[in-house]
Amino acid sequence: MDIFFNPDSVAVIGASKRNIGNFVIRNLLAGFKGPIYPVNPNYTEIEGLPCFSAVEDIPRPVDLAIVLVPALSIPALLTACARKGIKRVIIESAGFAETGEAGLALQEHCLTIAKQAGLRIWGPNCMGIVDVLQGHFFTFMHPGIREEGLLPGRISLIVQSGMMSAIFLAELGRRGIGINKACSIGNRADVDEVDVLDYLLKDPDTEVIALYLESLPRGRLFAELAQKSPKPIVVLKGGNSPAGAQAARSHTYSLSGNSRLANSVLEMAGVTLAEGIFQMMEIAHTLTMIPQMNPACRTVILTLSGGAGILACDALEKRGIPIARLSAETRKAVGEIFPAWMPVANPIDLFPAVGVHGRGVVFERAGSAVLTDPNCDVLLIHYVAGLDETPDLKAFKAKADQSGKVLLFWLMGRKQGCKRFRQEARTLGIPVHEDVGRIAECLLAASRFKTHQSGLKGIDTGLTLPSASKRPPLPLREKVWDEFDSKRFLSLWKIPVVEEALVSDLKEALHQARETGWPVVLKGLMPGQAHKTEQGLVRLGIWDKPQLENAFRHIQGRLKPGGRFLIQKEIRFDYELIAGFIRDDQFGPCLMFGLGGIFSELEPDVVFALAPLDQDEALKVIDRSHGRKLLQGCRGTAPLKKKPMAQILVHLGRLGAAYPEIAQIDINPLVVSDGLPLAVDANVILKS
Amino acid sequence: MDIFFNPDSVAVIGASKRNIGNFVIRNLLAGFKGPIYPVNPNYTEIEGLPCFSAVEDIPRPVDLAIVLVPALSIPALLTACARKGIKRVIIESAGFAETGEAGLALQEHCLTIAKQAGLRIWGPNCMGIVDVLQGHFFTFMHPGIREEGLLPGRISLIVQSGMMSAIFLAELGRRGIGINKACSIGNRADVDEVDVLDYLLKDPDTEVIALYLESLPRGRLFAELAQKSPKPIVVLKGGNSPAGAQAARSHTYSLSGNSRLANSVLEMAGVTLAEGIFQMMEIAHTLTMIPQMNPACRTVILTLSGGAGILACDALEKRGIPIARLSAETRKAVGEIFPAWMPVANPIDLFPAVGVHGRGVVFERAGSAVLTDPNCDVLLIHYVAGLDETPDLKAFKAKADQSGKVLLFWLMGRKQGCKRFRQEARTLGIPVHEDVGRIAECLLAASRFKTHQSGLKGIDTGLTLPSASKRPPLPLREKVWDEFDSKRFLSLWKIPVVEEALVSDLKEALHQARETGWPVVLKGLMPGQAHKTEQGLVRLGIWDKPQLENAFRHIQGRLKPGGRFLIQKEIRFDYELIAGFIRDDQFGPCLMFGLGGIFSELEPDVVFALAPLDQDEALKVIDRSHGRKLLQGCRGTAPLKKKPMAQILVHLGRLGAAYPEIAQIDINPLVVSDGLPLAVDANVILKS
Repeated sequence: MDIFFNPDSVAVIGASKRNIGNFVIRNLLAGFKGPIYPVNPNYTEIEGLPCFSAVEDIPRPVDLAIVLVPALSIPALLTACARKGIKRVIIESAGFAETGEAGLALQEHCLTIAKQAGLRIWGPNCMGIVDVLQGHFFTFMHPGIREEGLLPGRISLIVQSGMMSAIFLAELGRRGIGINKACSIGNRADVDEVDVLDYLLKDPDTEVIALYLESLPRGRLFAELAQKSPKPIVVLKGGNSPAGAQAARSHTYSLSGNSRLANSVLEMAGVTLAEGIFQMMEIAHTLTMIPQMNPACRTVILTLSGGAGILACDALEKRGIPIARLSAETRKAVGEIFPAWMPVANPIDLFPAVGVHGRGVVFERAGSAVLTDPNCDVLLIHYVAGLDETPDLKAFKAKADQSGKVLLFWLMGRKQGCKRFRQEARTLGIPVHEDVGRIAECLLAASRFKTHQSGLKGIDTGLTLPSASKRPPLPLREKVWDEFDSKRFLSLWKIPVVEEALVSDLKEALHQARETGWPVVLKGLMPGQAHKTEQGLVRLGIWDKPQLENAFRHIQGRLKPGGRFLIQKEIRFDYELIAGFIRDDQFGPCLMFGLGGIFSELEPDVVFALAPLDQDEALKVIDRSHGRKLLQGCRGTAPLKKKPMAQILVHLGRLGAAYPEIAQIDINPLVVSDGLPLAVDANVILKS
Repeated sequence: MDIFFNPDSVAVIGASKRNIGNFVIRNLLAGFKGPIYPVNPNYTEIEGLPCFSAVEDIPRPVDLAIVLVPALSIPALLTACARKGIKRVIIESAGFAETGEAGLALQEHCLTIAKQAGLRIWGPNCMGIVDVLQGHFFTFMHPGIREEGLLPGRISLIVQSGMMSAIFLAELGRRGIGINKACSIGNRADVDEVDVLDYLLKDPDTEVIALYLESLPRGRLFAELAQKSPKPIVVLKGGNSPAGAQAARSHTYSLSGNSRLANSVLEMAGVTLAEGIFQMMEIAHTLTMIPQMNPACRTVILTLSGGAGILACDALEKRGIPIARLSAETRKAVGEIFPAWMPVANPIDLFPAVGVHGRGVVFERAGSAVLTDPNCDVLLIHYVAGLDETPDLKAFKAKADQSGKVLLFWLMGRKQGCKRFRQEARTLGIPVHEDVGRIAECLLAASRFKTHQSGLKGIDTGLTLPSASKRPPLPLREKVWDEFDSKRFLSLWKIPVVEEALVSDLKEALHQARETGWPVVLKGLMPGQAHKTEQGLVRLGIWDKPQLENAFRHIQGRLKPGGRFLIQKEIRFDYELIAGFIRDDQFGPCLMFGLGGIFSELEPDVVFALAPLDQDEALKVIDRSHGRKLLQGCRGTAPLKKKPMAQILVHLGRLGAAYPEIAQIDINPLVVSDGLPLAVDANVILKS
């Protein structure tokens, strides 16, 4: 990968005196130190550089080729590159998989040629590579974006869409956010986001990685890299909505996949999911500035406006950021500058105190008190610029660094004052935002990443799966197993299932009901069918013999040949959960966990994670569930016993991962009574 | 009220050569045409104006006094003002209710003096009034904010917090958003947000009203004004979170009240709730520019970046804004400029077409097609500024206006290009945003407001309540009624309740169980107690005589003297709802409706509305519920029968409103089986 970023020499195939063929040359001349070889049979010179008719005419070795010529001419060109000994090619031209079937075939043809020749391809349909720190601009992006000023920084970007890459750079420049590398990967016929992520994780100049992606074909690898990443990763995923996913399909040839699953797995792997372009940029930028944050994130707010203090509280608490309780020392110190009538509380409204002591004294004393308060991790100052004095930012920052606390500003006010303030803060590495909601989002991202990191362990979690030769063969070969067979199989893997039995006639049914005790449920099972209720094949609440007889006859009348009767104990439960296993195209074996019953209809809110996983990871999955409040016990119900629940997830994950034939397992419902989960209905589905 | 905004003459009590006493004079001189009388015994002249020792020394009549002197001197001053014949006083000084009990007493003393003298007071603890259009700056706000440029516009602001008012103005100036009036109302001892809202609703220069409030003491009047308002109202409410509410209590003397109720009632009254300062400003600004929008809000996206199109879809769909289906004509017209391989879809990605035809032609042709498409209400164009050509905004806007469609831009790109673009768009009244999420929020606000307006009817909804003399007296006087008494009372008001009876012994219980049919529920009722389950006073699922005997003895052992037995039919239901009535301090009689059972624990998501209400309003309440998907029927359950449900809400609202003694009624659960709601448990609570 490194040759893509740091080649000794670059050929530009399709260089020109105008337009994008010219932009690439000008961009290269702006910072690349090695030899640049324009290639175009129509010119002998471009921007003062000798121009060659063909790549093979270049008299010296070439490391990297940047290709801008029409798509149809590229297969032959790749052969020529290979002959020339070029090992890396960035194809920036469009006209491949994104244009439909013919384009896809052309792209695959190029890939075959490249693989045979040992060439690696970047793109096609992309804007190539920008490395601001080194001044490497391997891109047809408009030189104006570069000239208007890109600041070197510690964020690196991976962007699937070409145009978005240029937009991102322009916006970062406009906002004064520094950038290290911007990698526009386009159709990613060969090099993809996983390759680039892997490279950037090792890149010493990159501290935070931000990505715009429309799909993750190698989602599992991506998530595994993220899981262990020491650097925060922020992902903006396009195509989360139905119409967005539809649009993504025809753009850069992406299959967005199941975005609920993808988003959930990424979050479980410690990735921050962004919802918009600027949010992504600003979270990434802030994360480069607050690497030392304590994940507890107890925040103190200093303000000159009571209203702003209230809004800051609202924004932080809405996202679960705790408002710190001031220590007695801090309350005393702040109390000394407050007027007598005013109680000291967080947010600390300094306005009345400023009237008495002046701004300088008040900020200094309150700030010092908070920055030595052991109950405070983050100091958020609401500041209105354009007033006469400005706080001594340098001293503030030094004090914050010394005490290991995070300092951020919510800045408002007059134009010139804001500009001056921002410039100084940028030099000092202090995050400044104009929207307190964004500050809360940044703190949440930092807190979650730190928490994720602190929970990381070594890789060997004792989860080696039974080898194919050792594990027993699957008992059945049908695609859809009925609930009895499914649960019998699950119970072999230590998953607790409801007491039940197959019965062949009414007499057996009666006997079984007396064994388990009333009330019972009678079900009719049909091979290959998962939906029994809709077909009248389920009778609940059977309390005596006459009711059982009635239910038996009812189901008998509906059961087709091959069907069987199942009788099970009717369980009184507190609530229903869902647990499942799914083999995803992008993420491979995954677990699913969430609230069941009516919840799952109303607001499907299940958590997904890579499978298999260990007990600790399974506990994290349970804690990440949106329904955790319910699981903690409410309305007189017992709290969910997390260990047995985690064990079910561990076994389910191992089981699913052990048998590549299994496409999906649904345990729905997994009912909970007295805190203990029990599988009441389940289906195993094999791959077709 | 009009004298506050348009006085003939103004006295400034506490005028000065320095600081805020000087700022007010300079601000007045900047635009006020009438005579200005500085009052301060220490000066004879301020800013070239003769200065008077006392208000009574002013030789001519004075309409309005602006007061900046210390709080303790103000009662005497008000008496002097009254003697002078001044009828309106803006007290900008602090030191009143916001400082605690002594300050509150001082404030009330001032109010008493004012009322006796027929004076109206604005403030105290506020920044007064700014009217940009007329150049009236009755405020101690820093003149720099004014000088840096406030644009006249069509938004008027009402701001509870003084500092926030100045911040808002500075930020609006910085963002180039025009403003008409900014009213900082502070502690609102006399004039409050309802008075000012009422004034602004009639003000021909105001088209949209935006408010920052920490509480709404006259919430009901506010909501009633909003309900009928022809102008959009955007409210940013501080103190929605527990810590925020706590902070609000000590700021501008606000009791935030039940913010869930307040927010819900305001939304039902057609108010847009904002979550942040800039969101509030930008929604208000955009609403001034798109008054003609069709509430259906079917949106077409034009873009030069596929990625941006996808993100726009995601942002719109997430907020429920529909992505338009293009008409056949549009598809044909756009198809003619698209390359052959590219299918026409919305979002319309113009990038490949631009390569063939050039930007000008492509934008013009695609734009024209969309703006005449009957399936399109809104055209959202993603544009990257700083490229060579810019679209002809004037022609675009004219075409959009002609066809009654809304045109908005999502603008990105290079600094200078963006600036030029924004300036031109501002002149033409085209909304431009840099964040597509914000665009979606603006469209949602416009769509909801338009929908609300179209649903407005005349005021007389036939909901006259029975007069106090005609309505039967309340059957009970206790504070908390038990569920039997509560349901009997509800059934008198046509609310369907579960079949049940009081029984005094086991024999009666058995008789009753046989009457209603098994299974039954047995409950022990204790006077004045609402929580039975926790005390073991409820036995469910009683199927036969032995179980009934067992349950009876169980409850008998727990029931204290004065308790009674209630036996009721056990209802099999599909799901549980909650309906209720509450008499709120700020909003008066209100209805509550939402999902019950476990839902209400997990994510309380009830809708509140002013009571009483009619059938149409009740249907809106049901449709606004977060659980509407469930209510539409899912998992084989029948859809909720909305008419009977609405009738329950109508009756509940009338009942609650008819008896001022009733503080609260809870119907929980209101179970639904086969789509029909039935009250299973209920409590009536009287005011103490």
